[in-house]
Amino acid sequence: MSDILPNTVKYPAIHLQAGRHKRVQLGHPWVYSNEVQMDAAAKALPPGSPVRLLDAGGTPLGIATFNPHTLIAARMLSADPAARIDHGFFADRLRRALDLRERLFDRPYYRLVHAEADGLPGLIVDRFGDVVTVQANSVFMDRSTDAVLAAIDEVLAPRALILRNDGTQRALEGLAEETRLVKGVIDGPIRLEENGVTFFANPLDGQKTGWFYDQRDNRAFIASLAKGGRAIDFYSYNGGFGVQCAVAGATSVVAVDRSALALENAARAAEANGVADRFEARRADAFQEMERLDAAGERFEVVIADPPAFVKAKKDLGAGCRAYRKMARLAARITAPGGYLLCGSCSHNVDPPTFAEQVARGLNDAGRTGRILRSAGAGPDHPVHPNLPESAYLKAIVMQVD
Amino acid sequence: MSDILPNTVKYPAIHLQAGRHKRVQLGHPWVYSNEVQMDAAAKALPPGSPVRLLDAGGTPLGIATFNPHTLIAARMLSADPAARIDHGFFADRLRRALDLRERLFDRPYYRLVHAEADGLPGLIVDRFGDVVTVQANSVFMDRSTDAVLAAIDEVLAPRALILRNDGTQRALEGLAEETRLVKGVIDGPIRLEENGVTFFANPLDGQKTGWFYDQRDNRAFIASLAKGGRAIDFYSYNGGFGVQCAVAGATSVVAVDRSALALENAARAAEANGVADRFEARRADAFQEMERLDAAGERFEVVIADPPAFVKAKKDLGAGCRAYRKMARLAARITAPGGYLLCGSCSHNVDPPTFAEQVARGLNDAGRTGRILRSAGAGPDHPVHPNLPESAYLKAIVMQVD
Repeated sequence: MSDILPNTVKYPAIHLQAGRHKRVQLGHPWVYSNEVQMDAAAKALPPGSPVRLLDAGGTPLGIATFNPHTLIAARMLSADPAARIDHGFFADRLRRALDLRERLFDRPYYRLVHAEADGLPGLIVDRFGDVVTVQANSVFMDRSTDAVLAAIDEVLAPRALILRNDGTQRALEGLAEETRLVKGVIDGPIRLEENGVTFFANPLDGQKTGWFYDQRDNRAFIASLAKGGRAIDFYSYNGGFGVQCAVAGATSVVAVDRSALALENAARAAEANGVADRFEARRADAFQEMERLDAAGERFEVVIADPPAFVKAKKDLGAGCRAYRKMARLAARITAPGGYLLCGSCSHNVDPPTFAEQVARGLNDAGRTGRILRSAGAGPDHPVHPNLPESAYLKAIVMQVD
Repeated sequence: MSDILPNTVKYPAIHLQAGRHKRVQLGHPWVYSNEVQMDAAAKALPPGSPVRLLDAGGTPLGIATFNPHTLIAARMLSADPAARIDHGFFADRLRRALDLRERLFDRPYYRLVHAEADGLPGLIVDRFGDVVTVQANSVFMDRSTDAVLAAIDEVLAPRALILRNDGTQRALEGLAEETRLVKGVIDGPIRLEENGVTFFANPLDGQKTGWFYDQRDNRAFIASLAKGGRAIDFYSYNGGFGVQCAVAGATSVVAVDRSALALENAARAAEANGVADRFEARRADAFQEMERLDAAGERFEVVIADPPAFVKAKKDLGAGCRAYRKMARLAARITAPGGYLLCGSCSHNVDPPTFAEQVARGLNDAGRTGRILRSAGAGPDHPVHPNLPESAYLKAIVMQVD
């Protein structure tokens, strides 16, 4: 990692504007560009440089990463002004993150590092047993990749390590997309477990890191309601919701997705868990299939609709909200009376009350009533920084529909 | 129930103002007094009367309860204009509520009816095996008590039935407080189970219905983190959090409450679950005890602070928020590095983002950092009406504290 300096050399200093140190002192992990004394020296720093952050009077606030070209100019790495951002720093943060996950879960399948909340801004690490995927979403983390990978090797010694640099956040930092295997061999889909159920994912091909652990608890909840009922899982991806419903005793499960590769993984999971006889993978567009099923009078005791983000940018908020409302309407229509409907959203730009309103409207549009049994976010391996509550992007609403 | 009319007699009609029927048509369960054509006949109706609700043009919207003296003038009972609000109506709603709980839980210990969300506005029913408690929070439900009790007897045939009419909402409806045993015998605390753990409660003496089932899932989560650690449970009441931590393997648990009766129940629960040797019931004021422990340098791997509502009315919002912030500060200070802290709030008047902000500030005030592992509300036996999201009163935030 090119930023690592000998212990005797100090990181460059960045001073904040007068009075603008308070938020950082209160624990906020970000400094905006208009809060920084953006002099020529600051502007000349290479994006992603570690810096010493000081208030206007020169009192040190800690070590941060700095990018003079982005709205978020500095991201705190350590409140210790003497901290060195080296291999040991990354290994220490990784060990803490691992301790927490080992407390939370019996099996080694989880998000190991969730960016700011784990003290590693811009870094996402997912663990699939002895296969680990890494995503660097900031210039600093991108430049620190070698140190991060070396620290992961030290702490976890994985069989395979995959760099999955394809997140939408990278473009904002001026970083290119790149997916590559940096250690080991990946031969076909990898195996993982969630809630005691076996799944398969393609971290070298699939969306994001190939598996969304964030819905773990919501999958367990809806599966607990599926026994003896017919379930349908729209936007099924690798079958997370659907296969768990089948294992929990659903009499039949249909997984609907547009990706043949995802449906192959879902079918393989159904086979591996001994529920292939009750599982159908159906390649279709979700809205079209909902409308077709409604017209055909088909009803399901459990309906799951957990789509990719409908709102990828703030300007899409209106259209995206209408899409969520339509999704809730179509999904509610094919929910059997007394059945259960899960509506999910992973759009960062839609806050929980706004999403809940779209779901309520969709339910009303369908001419149905019901009750919300659960409103939840991501599981505990996706922790949230206390001063970044808006970073809690996942929303899942489970209703019983009359 | 005096409101039950022969099937040939129609309920009195209440017309809405022009254009004011849309919210009801969209599924909202309430009508405000300024939306009603409040003529002399309407004003003369006895509070709590069932009425036929019609739009300004005379199109029927359904059957509602009516109170000409309250801000919420009408509460929807049924969208069916021909519905009769009789014994059969209550028995049907109770059976549906029971079906849902029997799907959710293996054992008969839960909130059976949660007001609007279960189609029974103003009614709360808690089940403790063969003991059932009932709370009527509206004039209509108060007047319907005999029919409700008869329906409960038909559906559940409980050994004992307790009327717990002591909620703060009753005063708003002009109803007096009253707690009485209407069936059977209650001889000392009753036994209940939650997450496989045995507890004791006093529904004839205790706060509300003697037990708060709403924290069930949050208790299970924090208990899952308690193994091998020291836990302290402030505002312990009957020991819900603390005893579950002890059963999950905490090396020691202190339950702190000001009520001797509550602590007796907590100690009895510890005894019944075989963890009395690791359980201490300590009678103290929570804030004073937190300060004393901090001064003494005592630290705990699990700290729970789930107080009664600090904000009972909107005018108390500022003072209440300061109290939540102080609670989070004091509780964070005695949390061991790497330990877990649960902060709870059951104040209706504090919304989730406001509560989260107080907790984040308190953490910062304590000079600590951390990450939010879980932000959750009440369990699924406390469903929320999709058009009354603000009725989700419970908030629990679980953090790991560095």
